[in-house]
Amino acid sequence: MMRQKKTNRDLVVEVATSLFLNKGYLATSMDEIVATSKVSKTNIYYYFSSKEDLLSAILDQLIQTYRGLIAEIASQHALSVYERITALLQLLANQELSCLGGCPFLTLYTQLPPDAHAIRAKVGRFFLDQVDTVDKLLQMGIERQEFKAGLPSRPTAQLIVSAVEGGLFLQHAGQDDTLLEQALSTLALLLK
Amino acid sequence: MMRQKKTNRDLVVEVATSLFLNKGYLATSMDEIVATSKVSKTNIYYYFSSKEDLLSAILDQLIQTYRGLIAEIASQHALSVYERITALLQLLANQELSCLGGCPFLTLYTQLPPDAHAIRAKVGRFFLDQVDTVDKLLQMGIERQEFKAGLPSRPTAQLIVSAVEGGLFLQHAGQDDTLLEQALSTLALLLK
Repeated sequence: MMRQKKTNRDLVVEVATSLFLNKGYLATSMDEIVATSKVSKTNIYYYFSSKEDLLSAILDQLIQTYRGLIAEIASQHALSVYERITALLQLLANQELSCLGGCPFLTLYTQLPPDAHAIRAKVGRFFLDQVDTVDKLLQMGIERQEFKAGLPSRPTAQLIVSAVEGGLFLQHAGQDDTLLEQALSTLALLLK
Repeated sequence: MMRQKKTNRDLVVEVATSLFLNKGYLATSMDEIVATSKVSKTNIYYYFSSKEDLLSAILDQLIQTYRGLIAEIASQHALSVYERITALLQLLANQELSCLGGCPFLTLYTQLPPDAHAIRAKVGRFFLDQVDTVDKLLQMGIERQEFKAGLPSRPTAQLIVSAVEGGLFLQHAGQDDTLLEQALSTLALLLK
């Protein structure tokens, strides 16, 4: 029975993620999630108290997945720092989820109701942690002389995470899926 | 009579811009625009055939305003190219309009209905034109030896526009209004 429940919850999260990202959070009704997932409304409300609660759970899951992937790359001590930063950029640049705005976090964030402060803060925290991770890698790279001496690590980390987010959006808006890779290769070269 | 009509149209655009950016496009009803602007629904529908048509007009106006400001900075021949690029970054980084996602274009773009292809293409075109403008400035700066020789101008221009867009979002999500300025100063230094 626990297994059945888990499967239904996963199914609802999967269906709602796709609808929220490709059609829009506000444009998606709970009825549509019921119809697409074939999970009853009663069952959905057993797991999630509201559509906003479901969105919050989706963001938690996305954040947890990306945190794991980022931590894994950052700790690959066999790789040079440059290689780890490049791998990190590739991970962030190759979002597998299709969505309205290029990046799932940005897409969900800009659709949040104005009063959804806790969810907004959660997304903000996630990006600050990304900046922290890149900052630490850059510091290590500067120490090991892989990057320019005197490179200011914090603002450079902010620049890198900004470029990834903005590049995902521009790539989507400009219908050009080579933009981000080219821009990030250039950035990586500028750091050397 | 023409003057009165123009004033009402402007008022509707102004009110709808603020509501779409701060509350959300889908979350705003035409009734709310009527109530806030005090312009009758009949009068609004005289100017705009639908809410989507109103959104399209808002984007046209925002794009026209920014195109003018960008062209003005790009053509200031008394300034060095570096100064013009810095001024351009300042213009784009200091968005006066408050909105859900940091940048008005990004905020409206991610809220567009999936089938709003023409409006989406319009936003895409606007950003490609920004990349073109920065690309031309960079080429000029490389010729004049203000920037690194061999700097690849196109991907660097994509990187700059991406960093501005992503930085606006990160700044909003992280509640840190110094992030973009620091990131962009670092980028400007890396180009030299």
